Amino acid sequence: MRILIIGAVAGGTSAAAKARRNSEDAEIIIFEKDVDISYSGCGLPYYIGGEVEKRSELVPRDAAFFREKYNVDVRTSHEVLDIDPNGKVLKVRDLNDGREYEEAYDKLIISTGARPFVPQMDGVSLDGVFTLRNVQSADRIRDFLRSKSPKRAVIVGTGFIGLELCEVLVKNGLEVHMVEKLPQVTPGLDSDMSNYLRDYLEKKGVILHLGTSATSIEGEGTVSGVTLESGETISADMVILAIGVRPETTLAKNCGIETGQSGAIRTDKSMRTSIPDIYACGDCAESFSLITGKPVYRPLGSTANKTGRIAGNAIFNDSLEFRGVLGTGIFRVFDMTVGQTGLTEREAIAEGYDIEVSHNIKPDRPTYYGGKEMVIKSVADRKTGRLLGVQIVGYGGVDKRIDVFVTAISFGARAEDLFHLDLAYAPPFSTTKDPVMYTGMILDNAMRGGRSIADPRLIGNGTYDGEEVQIIDARAAGQYMEGHVEGAVSMPHETVREKLSGLDRDKPVIAYCNKGTTGNAVQNILLNNGFTMVYNISGGNTNYRTQKKKRD
Amino acid sequence: MRILIIGAVAGGTSAAAKARRNSEDAEIIIFEKDVDISYSGCGLPYYIGGEVEKRSELVPRDAAFFREKYNVDVRTSHEVLDIDPNGKVLKVRDLNDGREYEEAYDKLIISTGARPFVPQMDGVSLDGVFTLRNVQSADRIRDFLRSKSPKRAVIVGTGFIGLELCEVLVKNGLEVHMVEKLPQVTPGLDSDMSNYLRDYLEKKGVILHLGTSATSIEGEGTVSGVTLESGETISADMVILAIGVRPETTLAKNCGIETGQSGAIRTDKSMRTSIPDIYACGDCAESFSLITGKPVYRPLGSTANKTGRIAGNAIFNDSLEFRGVLGTGIFRVFDMTVGQTGLTEREAIAEGYDIEVSHNIKPDRPTYYGGKEMVIKSVADRKTGRLLGVQIVGYGGVDKRIDVFVTAISFGARAEDLFHLDLAYAPPFSTTKDPVMYTGMILDNAMRGGRSIADPRLIGNGTYDGEEVQIIDARAAGQYMEGHVEGAVSMPHETVREKLSGLDRDKPVIAYCNKGTTGNAVQNILLNNGFTMVYNISGGNTNYRTQKKKRD
Repeated sequence: MRILIIGAVAGGTSAAAKARRNSEDAEIIIFEKDVDISYSGCGLPYYIGGEVEKRSELVPRDAAFFREKYNVDVRTSHEVLDIDPNGKVLKVRDLNDGREYEEAYDKLIISTGARPFVPQMDGVSLDGVFTLRNVQSADRIRDFLRSKSPKRAVIVGTGFIGLELCEVLVKNGLEVHMVEKLPQVTPGLDSDMSNYLRDYLEKKGVILHLGTSATSIEGEGTVSGVTLESGETISADMVILAIGVRPETTLAKNCGIETGQSGAIRTDKSMRTSIPDIYACGDCAESFSLITGKPVYRPLGSTANKTGRIAGNAIFNDSLEFRGVLGTGIFRVFDMTVGQTGLTEREAIAEGYDIEVSHNIKPDRPTYYGGKEMVIKSVADRKTGRLLGVQIVGYGGVDKRIDVFVTAISFGARAEDLFHLDLAYAPPFSTTKDPVMYTGMILDNAMRGGRSIADPRLIGNGTYDGEEVQIIDARAAGQYMEGHVEGAVSMPHETVREKLSGLDRDKPVIAYCNKGTTGNAVQNILLNNGFTMVYNISGGNTNYRTQKKKRD
Repeated sequence: MRILIIGAVAGGTSAAAKARRNSEDAEIIIFEKDVDISYSGCGLPYYIGGEVEKRSELVPRDAAFFREKYNVDVRTSHEVLDIDPNGKVLKVRDLNDGREYEEAYDKLIISTGARPFVPQMDGVSLDGVFTLRNVQSADRIRDFLRSKSPKRAVIVGTGFIGLELCEVLVKNGLEVHMVEKLPQVTPGLDSDMSNYLRDYLEKKGVILHLGTSATSIEGEGTVSGVTLESGETISADMVILAIGVRPETTLAKNCGIETGQSGAIRTDKSMRTSIPDIYACGDCAESFSLITGKPVYRPLGSTANKTGRIAGNAIFNDSLEFRGVLGTGIFRVFDMTVGQTGLTEREAIAEGYDIEVSHNIKPDRPTYYGGKEMVIKSVADRKTGRLLGVQIVGYGGVDKRIDVFVTAISFGARAEDLFHLDLAYAPPFSTTKDPVMYTGMILDNAMRGGRSIADPRLIGNGTYDGEEVQIIDARAAGQYMEGHVEGAVSMPHETVREKLSGLDRDKPVIAYCNKGTTGNAVQNILLNNGFTMVYNISGGNTNYRTQKKKRD
């Protein structure tokens, strides 16, 4: 058995290791165009920033390691030029000496990864314009920062790589501009959650240019600025293009392997491509949603490891099948963590779900123990009660809650299940009821308990979604005075029972407090007193303020 | 509807709040013997230690709050003397003035909590002998530390309260002795996991007296020492009894309410006791295991909140039923976190399960990003593949992994499911494959892939569980020289393929490395070369060393 693998980063090396675990006899060869192998692509921003000091920490394994430990022949600086699926032969070029030769395979695994998308515009090749793809490209950015001491940078794109690099540059003392085509940062988030991140970035001094594109990069030899659609030019000493990545599928397409709508290689659950004996894994392969079953393209190191292992196993048996992804992602920018999993509100609506949405604002630990608030936006399917997706922004413990949600959603959890989880409680780690449990309670109360949630974006001056409503501010009168929802009257929680007669029972009532808890208490009082149309503002005044804030 | 509640800490106040959410009309009265209500019992150690500075942070709500916000009448310093279930009347004493009166109920909720167990021995009433039950008892310890500046303390009991207090006292400069009847610290853990904690505590300077009991407390008026079974007296300026708690059930028992084997009040899933219209919740109530369905007693603030809410709801409808507990617990002592959920190995064996056990040692984040190792012991049912329980000791990210395991076990996860979880990966938060995933892979490989795991406790000099075996050390020769498993020969991973002929195919082989990964790689080589009896040491030499270490 002769197994050839194209690409030696996360997917390819995982496939090789798993194949070897299945068979001592198989001959396994990996071809890698690059010089580095098996490195942590997700660690690159931290390497540039110096949090990871040594290059060797990012690239812990070399070809000798794979030879000695796994009896795998890793050929770096070897480019595969062509796949002949009929003859089952690869044409390979040794980039060290230009020599070309052929290698025959019984099984082939394509793990060619992804490349940063570079838009077609003037100036992308100027000195000082970077993309981040591999360790060498990280070296170039790191060297540039140290040798050229740039003062101003423009980052095009506000995905997690752009934001992680943004932090690095700000910490290096640069003035950082970020350009994003969409009217929000981080396209993967719902816009309301994106607003929290946006406000935080601006507080950190990042200058955002949203809803506009870069049309050209200026400079003579070296970059001097970026011109936007408006005609405005931002002067800059360096530019990073972080607009996203595209699957590297040239070899696969050239030999007739099918790709999906995403442009990535289509596979079955054993990572088999449309051509017999050829498998694909990692960032060049299409994935599918565990929730909808539909194809998605979500290139990530963790998924590449997973699909690599599955491909390396599938050559020998079908005991391991890919179950799809939830599209989980997480990043840290300065002290803020942003995580998400499953469907966003936007995606859930596009899929035709009738959804319930909640914004739950809670500290990650007791405030007496230094807890800091996180905002958990959750989306559930009203028909089944099932949780569809979650987005969280916060400062501590976000990764924990996202992973708990990931696990719950993977097992088909309904909102009502979350309250029952026997999660670990001690003050250094959580609140007595964990924020995850509150999220379940809020959603379940809305779906089955008649505790309707109002979307702050739909609130006008005394109206909700265009309809006339009564808005009551359940906080202390002093808080109302400092700022309140447009059209709201002050009716502190402890006075509501006495003031019921002042409310019109035929008109919907919207209650709110700072974050939602007291608003819910008042909602309960009204419902239990016979009012029928009572809403609580999702995430209270905190969320309302964030969504209604005048920006620009 | 008249609802009376006995006890105003976690369970009672949760019940009251939920009852009010269900009904505006119900009259709700809570009687509390103590002066403080609704405080965080789990926060008391941190209050004593000063991490929580103000008493008011621990006790954020008072009777006025419940009156104003929930229209609930909380009567502090009011002791319920007697329950008359036929007349549906309580006899109450106002401790402020000694007045006694009766209150009739339609529904009664007993939430009398638990009290620290105080053994019958001389000296327990001496000055300087403490238990930790409520805020006042915490005040006493705090005041004693500040005013008396004790130099030496003995803590009897090594459960989480004892350990949290141990940290406080060590940080206050005291020499701390801990006395534990069992031969291990923290009775709830399996002894092998307890060994990690034990070594850590000793490194922190805590003096442990295990496998012995305190027989008397010495002193004249004020404590001067603790005498152990051996006759040895440890001199001490203060003593804390933290041997565990007992459910406070006197009132319930006196009126004929059934208790379970644990001594706590038996309830159904709606928290109904054996007497109509009387409910129980919180630390006085028995719980049951979500895994076995059998009664357990696991008093915890988080469970009290949960059962309180269920009791408060059950008065009105059966929409919310208690699903039981996994026995999840977590504590931090110095920088170490210890978490557990589900069945221990000991419990699983006692329940008759045929189990697979793994010790997975992995960093919580990439080591290039400051990751520190945690040890994850997991127990699975070989028959079904289901995960039964997990214990973790580590320094960071333990709470996250425990909560992911809690969620997985709650949904009946099999070991093989863990690899497929789309957990959130970025270097500040996790490794590319999360430690949770590795745990699932190791267990599944053992149960379905023939990758048997050897328990280091069963390894003798060239034997395993009494049988003669070949033990091979797969690490670099230099590591072998520095110390190795008794009876092992050095056979570094990269040399194994050449040295196969030197091994006896008819005798079992046990491979190992430092933590398990390379041992598994060698195990694969042997199995794929036709060897049939091949084990990998669980947790490798690290775990072996910890388990075989000579102590005392």
